[in-house]
Amino acid sequence: MKPSYKILQKDKKTKARAGIISTPNGDIETPIFVPVGTQGTVKAVDPKQLREMGAEVVLANTYHLHLRPGEDLIKKFGGLSKFMSWNGPTMTDSGGFQVFSLGVGKEGGGVKFLRDDPKERNTDDPKPRLNKITEEGVTFQSHLDGSTHKLTPESSIDIQEKIGADLIVSFDDLESPKYDYEETKKSLEMTNRWEIRSKNAHKRKDQLLYGVTHGGPFRDLREESARFVDENFDAIALGGAHLSKTNLYEVVDWTTDVVTSEKPRHLLGIGEVDDLFEGVERGVDTFDCVIPTRIGRTGFFFISPPSGNMKNRFRTDIDKPQFVKDMKPLDPNCSCYTCQNFTRGYIHHLFRAKELLSYNLISLHNVHFLVNLTKDIRKSILEGNFKELKKKWLM
Amino acid sequence: MKPSYKILQKDKKTKARAGIISTPNGDIETPIFVPVGTQGTVKAVDPKQLREMGAEVVLANTYHLHLRPGEDLIKKFGGLSKFMSWNGPTMTDSGGFQVFSLGVGKEGGGVKFLRDDPKERNTDDPKPRLNKITEEGVTFQSHLDGSTHKLTPESSIDIQEKIGADLIVSFDDLESPKYDYEETKKSLEMTNRWEIRSKNAHKRKDQLLYGVTHGGPFRDLREESARFVDENFDAIALGGAHLSKTNLYEVVDWTTDVVTSEKPRHLLGIGEVDDLFEGVERGVDTFDCVIPTRIGRTGFFFISPPSGNMKNRFRTDIDKPQFVKDMKPLDPNCSCYTCQNFTRGYIHHLFRAKELLSYNLISLHNVHFLVNLTKDIRKSILEGNFKELKKKWLM
Repeated sequence: MKPSYKILQKDKKTKARAGIISTPNGDIETPIFVPVGTQGTVKAVDPKQLREMGAEVVLANTYHLHLRPGEDLIKKFGGLSKFMSWNGPTMTDSGGFQVFSLGVGKEGGGVKFLRDDPKERNTDDPKPRLNKITEEGVTFQSHLDGSTHKLTPESSIDIQEKIGADLIVSFDDLESPKYDYEETKKSLEMTNRWEIRSKNAHKRKDQLLYGVTHGGPFRDLREESARFVDENFDAIALGGAHLSKTNLYEVVDWTTDVVTSEKPRHLLGIGEVDDLFEGVERGVDTFDCVIPTRIGRTGFFFISPPSGNMKNRFRTDIDKPQFVKDMKPLDPNCSCYTCQNFTRGYIHHLFRAKELLSYNLISLHNVHFLVNLTKDIRKSILEGNFKELKKKWLM
Repeated sequence: MKPSYKILQKDKKTKARAGIISTPNGDIETPIFVPVGTQGTVKAVDPKQLREMGAEVVLANTYHLHLRPGEDLIKKFGGLSKFMSWNGPTMTDSGGFQVFSLGVGKEGGGVKFLRDDPKERNTDDPKPRLNKITEEGVTFQSHLDGSTHKLTPESSIDIQEKIGADLIVSFDDLESPKYDYEETKKSLEMTNRWEIRSKNAHKRKDQLLYGVTHGGPFRDLREESARFVDENFDAIALGGAHLSKTNLYEVVDWTTDVVTSEKPRHLLGIGEVDDLFEGVERGVDTFDCVIPTRIGRTGFFFISPPSGNMKNRFRTDIDKPQFVKDMKPLDPNCSCYTCQNFTRGYIHHLFRAKELLSYNLISLHNVHFLVNLTKDIRKSILEGNFKELKKKWLM
């Protein structure tokens, strides 16, 4: 079965839409937040807990899985979804973003991104080392053992076919945010050539292949990229994790104005609360981001309004002394397993004592929080009150 | 309600018995293995997972909970069982074992125990420092911040009343295995005085207070201790974690021959597979031990016969290269959540990648393994084939 996308309801006032992506491993109701399971596991969260919270699809990183345990092993185990005992829809990225953005920096570019925020940095996540970019592809050294690897459009697709996710992504060149117009244009032309090679290499009919749009912060390049991807692919992935927020929203707008409405749109690597609302408003269907589990392991947990707001970025820190005797759940409005069963005081104790259960309980809550926020957003689109829900959260 | 114990069935050929301990938080079907939740959490295992696997009671350590988060906080949260969201029967020890055995060594004694096995050592578990032992009690320094604390029979009971477990233990002096007869006898006399003080300090009628038997490896002291505890307490705890196996089984025999049959018997800190069979055969009802979670975090998992046997101590190491492509569950005979849903190959990958889910999945399996082994033992007693089951495992 070939995955497909259908719009169920368009919002009257915005570009928001509620839809459904059908895949061989099940349906994905959109808009939806996609938890990231980098190495084939959403960090500190059990797949059963993911199912129980209503997660619809999990994204894993091709770069990490290629290096360990390897795509051949995953294929032998029946593909990613079975391998990790998730048994639902899955997605992989192309591996490009890791090779470029986590690397020591593209020659002449010096790529350093949002994720360098030390509060949210996963310090035990060593970086690959980027060696060389040619027309053929990218050579890099593994962060695990220093071994040399090459990623090309053909090899990225081959790896992703073996990993076997339902939704996969074309291999692209990642422009540096420091590039000027001419450099960005040159990078986009490389991306376009690589995307066509990705498309030509892709054989599996049961996978939906996303093209990726680029073009930095430049409107005409973004529009050119969007048209190119729309012409060649059935699904649109927006590359934007390295843009500032204002620019990000502009870029989304430029892109969704150009591409065919009846294709699913994924915003790569983005997932803050405000991004979800602003992205959906501009016509994005799916979002992936490591943020809920990454901040969860450092003790930060999401809170909903009125306690949660734009100023505190909808989060606070369980390590604070004020939570020692607090008998409330992490978020009093939350229906997750953690909030239905545990107090802030107990989780504060576990976190202070460095107990593994604390990382599980907080991460589970955070993933549930974003997944169910997008489910509420979907409901609001179906019921015609998306703008009201957005106002309630982002005022 | 006062906890009580009832024998349901005695084995015809041995001293094994199947019984039931009734507590205000529910019934405990014995024999049963008791998972240890040192700091108010069974390491890396969720309380819901404990319920689902059929765990009957959880033991927490008074020493650790006293230092953090403190008994007053636990009391405020409704007691240990509610605090940790376990909502079933709980047990605490007296705190004495930690202060003595994990300390730098009793003056003149130099206590070093089995747990010094580096393979199983939880290296991130710093030790308290023992300062002084007097008739009144023990002074020690916290392993957390160096602060000075005193533990006496009265304070141990006060702490345990506030923590609020259903089954609690008298404060005792822990003899060194290096003590000669006279030193052991002197230590036992101190234990006896401390146990009477514990009993006098105990006010809560809804808790069952265990007396602890001591006397080192000396038969007459062990028998004297057993008679003393039997005269003064409704429940018998056997102190023996520092004895060699042969001697341990002798000591259990000497003790259970002396004490009243209709009282529950707990073997403190013991829980290897062979110990469970040998202990039950000699009339022990309950066992606690950190072993399933401690070895679980280092990648060792329990396996049942025929792969598991006395020689490999019913375990193997998930880190072994042979498991890379292994599509079998950890233990093909196991019905736990891990074994029903995950392969050795996947868990090997998670463990190599240092993913937190690996510690959860292996620890869950290990706890399930021992809990359900004791459930099978119980069933065999009720069905009259305990000896056959023991032979199947320990031949």
